[in-house]
Amino acid sequence: MSISMYLASGQPTIRTLTNLRAILEKAAAHAEAREIDPSVLVNARLYPDMLPLSAQVQIATDNAKGSVSRLAGLEPPKYEDNETTLAELVARLDKTIALLKTFRPEQIDGSEDKTITLKVPNRTLTFKGMPYLLEYALPNIYFHVVTAYAILRHNGVELGKMDYMGKPA
Amino acid sequence: MSISMYLASGQPTIRTLTNLRAILEKAAAHAEAREIDPSVLVNARLYPDMLPLSAQVQIATDNAKGSVSRLAGLEPPKYEDNETTLAELVARLDKTIALLKTFRPEQIDGSEDKTITLKVPNRTLTFKGMPYLLEYALPNIYFHVVTAYAILRHNGVELGKMDYMGKPA
Repeated sequence: MSISMYLASGQPTIRTLTNLRAILEKAAAHAEAREIDPSVLVNARLYPDMLPLSAQVQIATDNAKGSVSRLAGLEPPKYEDNETTLAELVARLDKTIALLKTFRPEQIDGSEDKTITLKVPNRTLTFKGMPYLLEYALPNIYFHVVTAYAILRHNGVELGKMDYMGKPA
Repeated sequence: MSISMYLASGQPTIRTLTNLRAILEKAAAHAEAREIDPSVLVNARLYPDMLPLSAQVQIATDNAKGSVSRLAGLEPPKYEDNETTLAELVARLDKTIALLKTFRPEQIDGSEDKTITLKVPNRTLTFKGMPYLLEYALPNIYFHVVTAYAILRHNGVELGKMDYMGKPA
């Protein structure tokens, strides 16, 4: 089977969000076992001016739904960014994974040269579909997933790289 | 231009290692300006049983040279893992980037179903080329690049996500 925009986008994204979901469940079990107020982990950060765990999960899912939707020529759905618990962050991941699973190859394939525009603070970025996926969206998703992992690991949740990687395909 | 195994492997990998190189240079300048012994950053980690910055850079480059070499059917070169300074880690990145730039599309394209085997502690993993790239190698590279960033950010080096992302393509 030849690589395609569909295979390079939805599948790895679903995979990393699914692994992040399991990581958050481990964090919830860790907090419960040690009687840690779960909001401590939701609000944890690696440095005072870095974003907390909740925002890392929110932005990872924003990039996930945003990238696949935009490659398909659709407006990504808006989420509220109002999660305050690990369970709510897990629900956000579930909602995003369910959305990603609705996309079909014919919606994404052939989007290599599609013009993608997205507004970021203070400017509008314009890409072609392939560099958008490979050099912007995927690195962005991994950035926030790994940062979420790092925040939890730094806070003593017992995680290893295999929790992030998931089972070999 | 259609997405290909070549375009999905070498180019994003070169990009993220190049950005990591610039991040290490900022870390070196930060340490020098504040008279921090640079070995402090090289040996910094986010948790006592996590690997330090030096190992994050080593493993990121191992995965980078390993993945592209294996997709091309070549044995990846062995590096010594003896870097003890930021300058030596930058040199390792340079060596890896230079290697990645030698690969040509015809060496990598069509490797979707190529059997890839790699030894990890205690077992041998077997993949087909495409899931190896998309679900193992790239997430692995990003894991270590982002962890390196997180270690430096946590230690007060003034970095932002754009240092990790690099300039828009």
